[in-house]
Amino acid sequence: MFEEKDELAPGRVRVADRRHRHAREVLRAQPGDALVVGRIGGRLGRGTVLALDAHALELEVALDRDPPAKLDVVLALALPRPPSVRKVLQQATALGVPRFVLFASARVEKSYWQSTGLEPERLREQLLLGLEQSVDTVLPEISFARRFRPFVEDELPRIARGARILVAHPGEPAAGDARAAGGAAVLVIGPEGGLQDHELARLDAVGATRIALGPRVLRVETAVVALLARLAG
Amino acid sequence: MFEEKDELAPGRVRVADRRHRHAREVLRAQPGDALVVGRIGGRLGRGTVLALDAHALELEVALDRDPPAKLDVVLALALPRPPSVRKVLQQATALGVPRFVLFASARVEKSYWQSTGLEPERLREQLLLGLEQSVDTVLPEISFARRFRPFVEDELPRIARGARILVAHPGEPAAGDARAAGGAAVLVIGPEGGLQDHELARLDAVGATRIALGPRVLRVETAVVALLARLAG
Repeated sequence: MFEEKDELAPGRVRVADRRHRHAREVLRAQPGDALVVGRIGGRLGRGTVLALDAHALELEVALDRDPPAKLDVVLALALPRPPSVRKVLQQATALGVPRFVLFASARVEKSYWQSTGLEPERLREQLLLGLEQSVDTVLPEISFARRFRPFVEDELPRIARGARILVAHPGEPAAGDARAAGGAAVLVIGPEGGLQDHELARLDAVGATRIALGPRVLRVETAVVALLARLAG
Repeated sequence: MFEEKDELAPGRVRVADRRHRHAREVLRAQPGDALVVGRIGGRLGRGTVLALDAHALELEVALDRDPPAKLDVVLALALPRPPSVRKVLQQATALGVPRFVLFASARVEKSYWQSTGLEPERLREQLLLGLEQSVDTVLPEISFARRFRPFVEDELPRIARGARILVAHPGEPAAGDARAAGGAAVLVIGPEGGLQDHELARLDAVGATRIALGPRVLRVETAVVALLARLAG
């Protein structure tokens, strides 16, 4: 994965960081080898190794295909604890989520908002790892909603633009089937311990539908992957 | 989660390990508080805190309900790299997989079989974490198949006992839909880099059906959760 600043000239890329080490130590590439490459935000193709030494990797790149389609699902997630943020962002990016909203809720610990993991560079790192894993080039968008009520009443309907708003609520007995739905959706996932009743009521008021995964309590990173798999299926 | 050796007397449980620390430091339990408890292999219920000090936690337990139903899916997994083994076992146990088979395949690195993560105590630890997460008590079975051909030809049909054998193969273009299937299944997941053609041919010969998740390349732990969610859905 490269970007404009890695280009020495059109079609000529030079990297000297983690990507260089990966090519050298993990892939054990040799001059002449072809690697899968992609331009961030652009197309995918092949990069032929021109030079690879202790300092840098130089490639001649030819981009000839589009990245895979994204899911038509926006993931709105009550801000999880920092290690879960990393896991969720990486895996959901790999699965093709194009947009994340991390929102505040009564059961989100205030201290999570101070996590260094939310710094733009750290978030970008997680998104890039997800893209690399799934051979995609298009960075998802991330936004934050620090107040629950304006998030639900103003922002959520604007994000959904008529698409379904699905709320995953653990143990929800009367829950519908995520899949029965199909098509575009905003998937809202509450915090550990769940959304509170008054929060669910506000979501009901903007037309959200509750869905469940079954009787088992899952970590947020497991629940996110499972729900996305069902919505995408 | 407790077992016979933790019982001082019927209905009276004493623990002085990780579970004690969890009750003290994370849950901050006090005498009189009720915690969710379960007997390994048995029922779930409530444990009333009798005493909790720096040394141990003592509970009076009353078990009154069954653990959640398991999935009707056996997960047969080409032995992944050690960190993935942990993640897959924990998450798949939390999702309700009752049985795992870790098998050898041409692209499984031989060194993975020497991992200390495969020692029975270490495996049990991962399974217990998955059970605790999902409030379940029944430990999944794990077995190993160190030779691919006898695994596929002898063991797999015996495990399936007439249920469908589904093979997740990345990028499989003509793949069927996992869900269209429904009911009991053995889900076979190949190694990083995929099963080789001659391995797929042997699976075809015992009647396996190929399924796919889509065009994206996923980590094994992400793919396992996504496939199980679809099969269970």
